[in-house]
Amino acid sequence: MSFNDQTAQHAKLGDVWNVIREELLTHFKGEGMPQDASLDYNVLGGKLNRGMAVVDTVEILKGRSLRDEEYLQAAVLGWGVELLQAFFLVSDDIIDSSITRRGQPCWYRVEHPHKVGLISVNDSCMLERAIYYLLKKHFKKEPYYVDLLDLFHEVTYQTEMGQLVDSITAPESSVDLNRFSLKRHSLIVTYKTAYYSFYLPVALGMHICGVPETYTDTTSRKVIKPYEIAKSILLPLGEYFQVQDDFLDFSGTPSQIGKVGTDIVDNKCSWVINTALALASPEQRRILDENYGVKPTEEEKAMARALAAENGGEQGYLGEAEKRVKAVFEEIGIKEKYREYEDGVYKTLTGMIDEIPEGAPGEQGVLRKEVFTRFLDKVYRRQK
Amino acid sequence: MSFNDQTAQHAKLGDVWNVIREELLTHFKGEGMPQDASLDYNVLGGKLNRGMAVVDTVEILKGRSLRDEEYLQAAVLGWGVELLQAFFLVSDDIIDSSITRRGQPCWYRVEHPHKVGLISVNDSCMLERAIYYLLKKHFKKEPYYVDLLDLFHEVTYQTEMGQLVDSITAPESSVDLNRFSLKRHSLIVTYKTAYYSFYLPVALGMHICGVPETYTDTTSRKVIKPYEIAKSILLPLGEYFQVQDDFLDFSGTPSQIGKVGTDIVDNKCSWVINTALALASPEQRRILDENYGVKPTEEEKAMARALAAENGGEQGYLGEAEKRVKAVFEEIGIKEKYREYEDGVYKTLTGMIDEIPEGAPGEQGVLRKEVFTRFLDKVYRRQK
Repeated sequence: MSFNDQTAQHAKLGDVWNVIREELLTHFKGEGMPQDASLDYNVLGGKLNRGMAVVDTVEILKGRSLRDEEYLQAAVLGWGVELLQAFFLVSDDIIDSSITRRGQPCWYRVEHPHKVGLISVNDSCMLERAIYYLLKKHFKKEPYYVDLLDLFHEVTYQTEMGQLVDSITAPESSVDLNRFSLKRHSLIVTYKTAYYSFYLPVALGMHICGVPETYTDTTSRKVIKPYEIAKSILLPLGEYFQVQDDFLDFSGTPSQIGKVGTDIVDNKCSWVINTALALASPEQRRILDENYGVKPTEEEKAMARALAAENGGEQGYLGEAEKRVKAVFEEIGIKEKYREYEDGVYKTLTGMIDEIPEGAPGEQGVLRKEVFTRFLDKVYRRQK
Repeated sequence: MSFNDQTAQHAKLGDVWNVIREELLTHFKGEGMPQDASLDYNVLGGKLNRGMAVVDTVEILKGRSLRDEEYLQAAVLGWGVELLQAFFLVSDDIIDSSITRRGQPCWYRVEHPHKVGLISVNDSCMLERAIYYLLKKHFKKEPYYVDLLDLFHEVTYQTEMGQLVDSITAPESSVDLNRFSLKRHSLIVTYKTAYYSFYLPVALGMHICGVPETYTDTTSRKVIKPYEIAKSILLPLGEYFQVQDDFLDFSGTPSQIGKVGTDIVDNKCSWVINTALALASPEQRRILDENYGVKPTEEEKAMARALAAENGGEQGYLGEAEKRVKAVFEEIGIKEKYREYEDGVYKTLTGMIDEIPEGAPGEQGVLRKEVFTRFLDKVYRRQK
């Protein structure tokens, strides 16, 4: 898909947001409530990957472009996932005391038209609540309405579980690498990211295409559990996506990834530190214990700012602690380990996708390999 | 009902909590998650009014005591309302920077087994999520499963709207009585309290007794919308309950209401200030503008503490600002106004309840007056 195609697709999805926003604001007004300013601020400005994934899944499963009313339904579910994401981001930013999000101040830091502050705790929940209002409005009469509700509930619970384990494992204020492990990392990213970012959009698309819980493949006569298959591929794929994110935070330059990596100073339970811990010698482990999650001194921060101003945002200066951690990562050969991981997971996922039975040509309500290759192609060897 | 009966009823409901807690912890464990300490801490310790209301409603509608499996279902829904309440209280306490709740530190202030802090934002959402896990587990096969989901969603949204309007109308940090009015007060308490505390438990009970959206009364042949009727009585009743709370905060002694009233210094949008504003002369209004929501000085706080220690918790000392506000309330005759309000609302509600058609004796799936008189009798002329 070319850049222009993608822009047109985003614009089309954006048109549906205008419809949805009006529905939500009208509902608010009807209940005698004041205007809600948090909607556009927190829902828009993202890459729309998750929202687009619902629409793409439906198009692939139907094997054709969508009629207007079909597109509307798919897009409403897409915006449902984007609303869910907005809910998570607003609360995560409160929990992590983050400063900016999508290039603007985090919602809890906004001062106009009213000082938001911790009212944002309630605002985040209202973003989530809007999902169920929209589901009822657009899907109440569909036989799969209750499946959509169950799916959103389940995935939201899992994401919140992931957030909890992440908070307990890697609190910014107390560094203890004994809490870390690759297994713990996998648990966190699967629950915190993969369920809602990868499994949810596809499963939603499957529901509106009438894919049932189980069916018998017309060619192989095998009993298929399509949602189980989707989960078995999309959760490792989501994990792979997050591992990439972690790796790019370490290896990417600001001009490449659009930000300065801060996982090391922020004590993040990242794939990089966990891989290093699994391979470190006692001496390397000592260096990691002493320097991981250690904030730069005021002097070091001033130096970093000065250098960044000079060279237009590129990071030319690291604090001593971060430098020592990065040196250990290089010694251990993290970059090679990452290539090995990426090749391995790509091979595994390709193999799994190959085995999906697709029934007869043109058959409706069954899985398609392309749903998964679409994701895998977007993620494989991504550099930003 | 005698005190012992009530204790026995609470103990029976508590037994179901033990079952539910095990289900939730087992689910957590099954997903590979660490133990969740927030459940008992935040769900228990309340008066269980809302949980008991579901059970009582079901017993009244069925006209007999419940079989074990019927009791379990009613009790699960009762704990669902208590979980919803726990979710609201944990977030409200974060938003309001409260100190204690139900005689213990607010959850966000707890330090063990881990420092909770703003992770409580996520914990509060997980308390809510538990409701939907339990609904699926216990009601998935029931024809009214989807009605339970819709009802919880709707009422949760309304409560969060109420919280938003309350936060915008009466932020602790900025006093502006122009934002207040009796109409605004009614909107806030209806949405923030009445829907989930009064309408929700009864509507849940009605659903599991098979009360449909509409039916024709067997005696009068009138078409009945039982959920509309329930709402039309329970929302004003919930408002009345909250007006009482507001009034007792002003007029009750600590030994009577179990706490020292703080609505005046906390800039609360209470029935008392709104009634006073509606009746105040320009001079009285000036005094309210200058003194409402004004915190006591450090000196005044020390005096209050010293006096409270001397007389065993009774409040013997008020800050100057609070004293001036209370003097205006007395001048305006708030206590009389409250008696008038209480008599009026009691009469109105009694009249509305009287008009409910009850169908044939013993008829199932229809409304009963007793559902509403039970509540009204508990609330009328309550002193604590």
